[in-house]
Amino acid sequence: MKALVHEGKNGLEGLSIREMEELQPKAGEVRVTIRTAGLNHRDLFVLDRHKPTDPPLIIGSDGAGIIDAVGEGVTHVQAGDEVMINPGLGWKVNSDAPPEGFEILGLPTHGTFAEKVIVPGDNVAPKPRFLTWEEAGVLSLAALTAYRALFTRARIQPGMKVLIPGIGGGAATFLLQFAKAAGATVYVTSRSQEKCRKALEYGADRAIDSHEDWGAALDGAKVDVVIESVGAATFHKSLERLRLGGTIVTFGASAGDVVQLNLRDFFYGHHNLLGTTLGSGEEYRDMIKFIESHQIKPVLDRVVPLEQYAQAFERMERAAQLGKIGFYIGFGGQ
Amino acid sequence: MKALVHEGKNGLEGLSIREMEELQPKAGEVRVTIRTAGLNHRDLFVLDRHKPTDPPLIIGSDGAGIIDAVGEGVTHVQAGDEVMINPGLGWKVNSDAPPEGFEILGLPTHGTFAEKVIVPGDNVAPKPRFLTWEEAGVLSLAALTAYRALFTRARIQPGMKVLIPGIGGGAATFLLQFAKAAGATVYVTSRSQEKCRKALEYGADRAIDSHEDWGAALDGAKVDVVIESVGAATFHKSLERLRLGGTIVTFGASAGDVVQLNLRDFFYGHHNLLGTTLGSGEEYRDMIKFIESHQIKPVLDRVVPLEQYAQAFERMERAAQLGKIGFYIGFGGQ
Repeated sequence: MKALVHEGKNGLEGLSIREMEELQPKAGEVRVTIRTAGLNHRDLFVLDRHKPTDPPLIIGSDGAGIIDAVGEGVTHVQAGDEVMINPGLGWKVNSDAPPEGFEILGLPTHGTFAEKVIVPGDNVAPKPRFLTWEEAGVLSLAALTAYRALFTRARIQPGMKVLIPGIGGGAATFLLQFAKAAGATVYVTSRSQEKCRKALEYGADRAIDSHEDWGAALDGAKVDVVIESVGAATFHKSLERLRLGGTIVTFGASAGDVVQLNLRDFFYGHHNLLGTTLGSGEEYRDMIKFIESHQIKPVLDRVVPLEQYAQAFERMERAAQLGKIGFYIGFGGQ
Repeated sequence: MKALVHEGKNGLEGLSIREMEELQPKAGEVRVTIRTAGLNHRDLFVLDRHKPTDPPLIIGSDGAGIIDAVGEGVTHVQAGDEVMINPGLGWKVNSDAPPEGFEILGLPTHGTFAEKVIVPGDNVAPKPRFLTWEEAGVLSLAALTAYRALFTRARIQPGMKVLIPGIGGGAATFLLQFAKAAGATVYVTSRSQEKCRKALEYGADRAIDSHEDWGAALDGAKVDVVIESVGAATFHKSLERLRLGGTIVTFGASAGDVVQLNLRDFFYGHHNLLGTTLGSGEEYRDMIKFIESHQIKPVLDRVVPLEQYAQAFERMERAAQLGKIGFYIGFGGQ
């Protein structure tokens, strides 16, 4: 089978489409023929974490497709079922952190940018009918991350004010949609006028140019919750907007890992800083119920044949997208 | 009446014992004849926050004594009642942060280092019989802070592992006693061998020399909760000891306000950083019930006549104490 494989060199240079062996699912596993897959920031990080001397790796965490083989003991799905893949391996039930052995599909195990992928049977869920293949393929990692950040961690409630710095990436657009569906007032920021304009279309109550004074742009309003996936570039502006007793959830740091934190300001503010990544299988099912009941579809930036992976990676590196970038897997074109 | 008053100069130089006018309690207020009072780090900060050009201020947040006058509408206490004072003004019911108008007794309102103090009737509670005057006078601020930090914020449960860096000050010794009473395993650290030895006497499961490798000293054990009141000097060592999904509560930064925080490490750790100061009137009453049911007495470093305030302040500045430093208020000596 064909796949997008990383080997031999660090970064994008190590990527190529090549032939890989098609394996059989073991007990408890299923094999899925991938129709569509989704690109994530994680796929960029993986290109540096996966060493040139490591064996070739099929990258990719998100995907949707059709079950084509099931291992022994798998009874809840069968060949022909249309499914989405939960990329969180080994985190089944809700807990304050993933258990030992947790990993994300696409490193070190082979991922979704391939004609077929093998995953534990617990990691597939029926594709909701209201989602197209394009939508189902790009959803899982970002939507699960956003769901846990907003509901499990920040515990948002109707009427709360939520700030989402850096609208643009997949997780941020899900945050916007989920928070609005949950009845929150949502403010977003972006360096791009175009993204601000689109965020308003998608329901944001206010969209702020990142370079502006955020306090002035919000008429001095403070927020109950900030969901911070930008990192150092926005962290202090985010903290400044937080009300006494407010919560800042962090799950990304694409614009810098290290921040200076004034503990005294933080504790006088009775603030909460909560870290999160991805989520459990239980949260994945809850997230699907939530998007079904609110008929939430992912914001699609573009879906292109996997052969165009280099342009897609480059677009994400420039942070040019609004919403998710997806791939058609078919090696012939849809 | 006589009182310890700050005026005219920044810091300790602005302090003197002088005559102040004795006022009448207004509606809802009570006047308490102070028997004993307690020294806190806050009293040191106040000496810088209270400006030389401000009107003279009686400092002090902690105290216990006897009701000697009640204002209109106060029915739950009467003259002659023995009471402890809750220094948190304007925070009655539990909430994620104090309401607007919240302040702590002793700045900007006159405090407890005086023959008499006037406070809202809601801010006095019956002195538990099992406490001496010395113990009741030094308890409130540190014990309330520790109670909220451990129970409301960190939600400690029996069997949890709790790390308390910098055992020594009043709040830290309450943390040790409260956490042990709640069934936790408690590790403490100190720069002082003597304090480590005493902490073991007070029930600590392990007492670590701060200069050691904390991980090695704990045989690599990670903890569920760290209660951080030291600040920059210990913050990173504290974070390193935190398990995946663990919680660090911060309410003090006597050894430095500003820390560098790696957001990526923090969110991959699913960590929680929670700020807190003091607590509500509800938490104050819960704290008193807790110490009554567990018969917890404050660790007393020493109790001296208020006239010896300069030595007492100096002892606290050097962090030489283990437990609370108290004052006899009587201006004649007990």
